[in-house]
Amino acid sequence: MKVIVIGGTGTIGGAVVEQLGQRHEVVVVGARGGQHQVDIEDIAQVRALFAKVGRVDAVVVAAGALHVGPFAELTPEHFHVGLRGKLMGQVNVALVAQEFLNDGGSITLTSGVDTEHPIRGAVAASTANAAVEGFVRAAAIELPRGLRINAVSPTVLQESVHLFGGLFTGFEPIKGSRAALSYASSVDGAQTGRVYRAW
Amino acid sequence: MKVIVIGGTGTIGGAVVEQLGQRHEVVVVGARGGQHQVDIEDIAQVRALFAKVGRVDAVVVAAGALHVGPFAELTPEHFHVGLRGKLMGQVNVALVAQEFLNDGGSITLTSGVDTEHPIRGAVAASTANAAVEGFVRAAAIELPRGLRINAVSPTVLQESVHLFGGLFTGFEPIKGSRAALSYASSVDGAQTGRVYRAW
Repeated sequence: MKVIVIGGTGTIGGAVVEQLGQRHEVVVVGARGGQHQVDIEDIAQVRALFAKVGRVDAVVVAAGALHVGPFAELTPEHFHVGLRGKLMGQVNVALVAQEFLNDGGSITLTSGVDTEHPIRGAVAASTANAAVEGFVRAAAIELPRGLRINAVSPTVLQESVHLFGGLFTGFEPIKGSRAALSYASSVDGAQTGRVYRAW
Repeated sequence: MKVIVIGGTGTIGGAVVEQLGQRHEVVVVGARGGQHQVDIEDIAQVRALFAKVGRVDAVVVAAGALHVGPFAELTPEHFHVGLRGKLMGQVNVALVAQEFLNDGGSITLTSGVDTEHPIRGAVAASTANAAVEGFVRAAAIELPRGLRINAVSPTVLQESVHLFGGLFTGFEPIKGSRAALSYASSVDGAQTGRVYRAW
């Protein structure tokens, strides 16, 4: 399979590239690094990326900005960070990818553990992540040509837990390589409309 | 209790006004009708509304635009209809309401059955509705002063099923008065962070 991993230069994405690279041809895409660069918030850039890369068998996205901060201080603009980034960034990829995927291909997006286990300070993030999951469940029943779409909902990683202060206190961090298995389940498996819980 | 029902001039909202009006003082707010008018997509208008109405014990929202259409034809702008309307419209109300609610007061928002039962043509709607549910689950753990927040996820109503063509084929339409009971459960009950399924 030819697989494009958007966000493949990040912590989760890097582990996904390593996992899928064991048996697939992987195209690594980053915001700044990788073989190609894209800002997924701009659907024109997403179209340009796929026009360059050509047809693929699977698309993985492990990217998208989120805002973290106390609920009492949130403004609409804080919500828009995640709605533009984590949600519409990934939706943009899915909208374009459906045209460039070979029959039976798959799209795998990323949500987050906070949709099911709310965390203090993560209201705007949970809102965007829950929207990603709703999108995946709904899009799955309309995709043509045997195309599939799933999300992976990762918990915090061992490699990056130190970046989040106390945000994930009480959560068990997992290795990136373990989270990557959920992406492999989606890409190499046959299910659609699912949220794979990587925790 | 003094309860403000935004969207109280609509089909669901009207049934909620009738249900809650049996024992509470209800302020009916519409986009054009009602005692007060508001465009919930504009947080400045929401602030002006609450400044006029003053302190309340409960806020109900049964309003917010959504786009319905085939997935293959969706553009980012179709998603923004629901993200601006159903999602951020209701988020705007919640952000402002927390300042105007008396201790122990409640916020009740509206999602939709399609978050759990995907419907062909409702991808953009499901995305916004799922975000509303994620918002409610997350906001519930951060609200101060015993404030509560829930969502009601209504199925299609008997009173309006004729407006949706075949969209809800296979779903059992319920009376508005029955859907209104879920809003009463949220307003008069004591739970928080819940999605009440009205179907």
